[in-house]
Amino acid sequence: MNDNKIPYKIYLSEDEIPKQWYNVRADMKNKPAPLLNPATLKPMTAEELGAVFCDELIKQELDDNTKWIDIPDDILSFYKMYRPSPLVRAYCLEEKLKTPAKIYYKFEGNNTSGSHKLNSAIAQAYYAKKQGLKGVTTETGAGQWGTALSMACAYLGLDCLVYMVKVSYEQKPFRREVMRTYGATVTPSPSDTTEVGRKILAEFPGTTGSLGCAISEAVEAEATREGYKYVLGSVLNQVLLHQTIIGLETHTALKKYDIKPDIIIGCAGGGSNLGGLISPFMGEKLRGEADYRIIAVEPASCPSFTRGKFAYDFCDTGKICPLAKMYTLGSQFIPSPNHAGGLRFHGMSPILSQLYHDGLMEAVAVEQTSVFEAATTFARVEGILPAPESSHAIRVAIDEALKCKETGEEKTIVFGLTGTGYFDMVAYQKYNDGAMSDYIPTDAEIEKGFAGLPAQP
Amino acid sequence: MNDNKIPYKIYLSEDEIPKQWYNVRADMKNKPAPLLNPATLKPMTAEELGAVFCDELIKQELDDNTKWIDIPDDILSFYKMYRPSPLVRAYCLEEKLKTPAKIYYKFEGNNTSGSHKLNSAIAQAYYAKKQGLKGVTTETGAGQWGTALSMACAYLGLDCLVYMVKVSYEQKPFRREVMRTYGATVTPSPSDTTEVGRKILAEFPGTTGSLGCAISEAVEAEATREGYKYVLGSVLNQVLLHQTIIGLETHTALKKYDIKPDIIIGCAGGGSNLGGLISPFMGEKLRGEADYRIIAVEPASCPSFTRGKFAYDFCDTGKICPLAKMYTLGSQFIPSPNHAGGLRFHGMSPILSQLYHDGLMEAVAVEQTSVFEAATTFARVEGILPAPESSHAIRVAIDEALKCKETGEEKTIVFGLTGTGYFDMVAYQKYNDGAMSDYIPTDAEIEKGFAGLPAQP
Repeated sequence: MNDNKIPYKIYLSEDEIPKQWYNVRADMKNKPAPLLNPATLKPMTAEELGAVFCDELIKQELDDNTKWIDIPDDILSFYKMYRPSPLVRAYCLEEKLKTPAKIYYKFEGNNTSGSHKLNSAIAQAYYAKKQGLKGVTTETGAGQWGTALSMACAYLGLDCLVYMVKVSYEQKPFRREVMRTYGATVTPSPSDTTEVGRKILAEFPGTTGSLGCAISEAVEAEATREGYKYVLGSVLNQVLLHQTIIGLETHTALKKYDIKPDIIIGCAGGGSNLGGLISPFMGEKLRGEADYRIIAVEPASCPSFTRGKFAYDFCDTGKICPLAKMYTLGSQFIPSPNHAGGLRFHGMSPILSQLYHDGLMEAVAVEQTSVFEAATTFARVEGILPAPESSHAIRVAIDEALKCKETGEEKTIVFGLTGTGYFDMVAYQKYNDGAMSDYIPTDAEIEKGFAGLPAQP
Repeated sequence: MNDNKIPYKIYLSEDEIPKQWYNVRADMKNKPAPLLNPATLKPMTAEELGAVFCDELIKQELDDNTKWIDIPDDILSFYKMYRPSPLVRAYCLEEKLKTPAKIYYKFEGNNTSGSHKLNSAIAQAYYAKKQGLKGVTTETGAGQWGTALSMACAYLGLDCLVYMVKVSYEQKPFRREVMRTYGATVTPSPSDTTEVGRKILAEFPGTTGSLGCAISEAVEAEATREGYKYVLGSVLNQVLLHQTIIGLETHTALKKYDIKPDIIIGCAGGGSNLGGLISPFMGEKLRGEADYRIIAVEPASCPSFTRGKFAYDFCDTGKICPLAKMYTLGSQFIPSPNHAGGLRFHGMSPILSQLYHDGLMEAVAVEQTSVFEAATTFARVEGILPAPESSHAIRVAIDEALKCKETGEEKTIVFGLTGTGYFDMVAYQKYNDGAMSDYIPTDAEIEKGFAGLPAQP
């Protein structure tokens, strides 16, 4: 193996780290729909958003036209602590699969947060600090975003309040300790520390929580505290913007070795990793400069793209956030508690939703036992224990590589390996013990989710 | 910061990965004492060692003279999956400490085993496979070695039986699952699956186990199975040899930027990381080409160097292994169960023991609360959650940097950051909760350990 001079890991130099984020909206003919004020059904103004978000981030959120946005030097310095991340040629996986396909993955797990989330966490914390805030509030599902934000806040000396989806809080006690080690306060959600949490607990006693519900609590916690703003780890345009560092590095690394991908694959929960990875490639596609198959992979138990509706919906269960137009299962949809693999958000990034709606990308839903099977195969040959979330992309990358084996095509497949699974061993244990099951929501359950959609403008 | 053109992370290219291991014994005037047969007190022959170890590894174990030993291509290929590891300039830590010292660390934690142990695991598994074996047996303390060996065995298709020190097995259930995910069988030690385990359980009911005890069980498991050999993650000459990849990469990276270290620091349990890191520098020192302060850091609760005897002793509690001449607390010494930081082996690498005895390196013992304090400081500014073991080196690197602050000296400090602490969150939680205590063995306890030493030849 490794006979064609492409190294196992393509590392850019620190000088090659992009100095600007790329705003794919500037190249989109059909812009993502604006966030709406749920009371007036009018687009949210910067002023209205200012009640919740930092000023500079609102500018980024609302800017559909500036193509390149400078990365501040302090953020670049932080990036240099763990970036550039390697683009890895999966020689061992190719050999295991005996596929003619060439497989690459952009590995974002080599930092303590264990995922790509740090790319946006440091940006958001930086702008909060710059605005003179005391701290930030947020929610976390699998815990990667919360850990990333805790790290960024520790670095900048900001207070950090994290509402963690209860099922993850219980399955991942050590995640909580990592966040505490970085100085964060972590509360399982729903909790009785907020009004919305108490309301949800009363309505759904015994609920294992959801991201949508944790968002509601974190927003309330921000609103009731002086000097705090709310930050979000996915879905929003600003987050996808920060995450383009992934795709830009990937693009540069591929170019350096004259590699042209045929298929680009990423897992999709709220869309931050996928959006970040594909943006520069999507830009080429939008400008007619190149063509790629782009595939979003989501869990069959939370299938926003493949079974959701493209509609205005709340981002949170408590219905206190603005409305976003996106593929959604309804803000009241909560995935089955047997679902272990993350990516449990009911909606999807408005940018990606628009691109998907316009036929510029595909989506597939996969079941979790097949995801863990792919994860285990990958771990044993590539030596990296992947996060369950990331393993959704591995599953489809393997499937596509196996199709190449059948057809004999030497396609080049690039996928995003967003993170590591060190804190997901309860789920791995379930799989190792043969005790993992799959769950696909019934049509009735999906319809029930849709019933909770707000009146469309 | 970063004003002097030295990047945050110095990465070598894959071509710069050393193609040979460096055998420091070749440059030692006083060779490490040979292993002795405990029955005859005569040096172990290759044939005698063959009952336990693989042939090629025995050759490496006994070879005091060949200075450079080729790394087989298959091992180099595996190394390329996770190496070269970065040499990181700790700009943020320097700034936090406001020290004129320049601090670098060689970070070995960016692989799923979470530590440097993989460097020797793949080598040992490779030679076992080459010899046509079915599998290997081993012990693991904190779990890093067991995980590393599981990964190497999964990659090569070898069976892997791991005896895990009971206190770690209980504190780190997820470590077990990682090993299982890589296909290993993990047994808490002492167990009733071996004769020696049953004997130890009878003599010390309620014991939390020790590395020495787990070694005895793993050796017995090897002896009673066809097609298996025993492998060890530290202490042995062969292990230090494989780990020189750390020091050689560090040496090359420093040279590339014309950096001359003044102080080199590593944590020391059995000595594999320290030995690997310092070997090329020690070689220069032995040959009179350069001088460095070299500091071994050990836990005050298991102080082999600083309070041990330089004597022949068993490597295992069950007294079935050969005798090694080393700094030892006695094979019956078991650190206090309140000790959370790894590095709990009663003895020390014979190579390092000889070098220490000859005054070529220093040693200090540090208490665990101060170690976790250093770990937390480091995590918050450098963004890496360090393993407790590695944090011993961080403690002393910080102490030396603070001395520079007092004296104004711009010393260059290099330390080994052996791994990450993702599976050590029980210990971190204890520290976060303020519930961690220190324990220094009394003189009487140390003397009691010495009482168990065998008659000296």
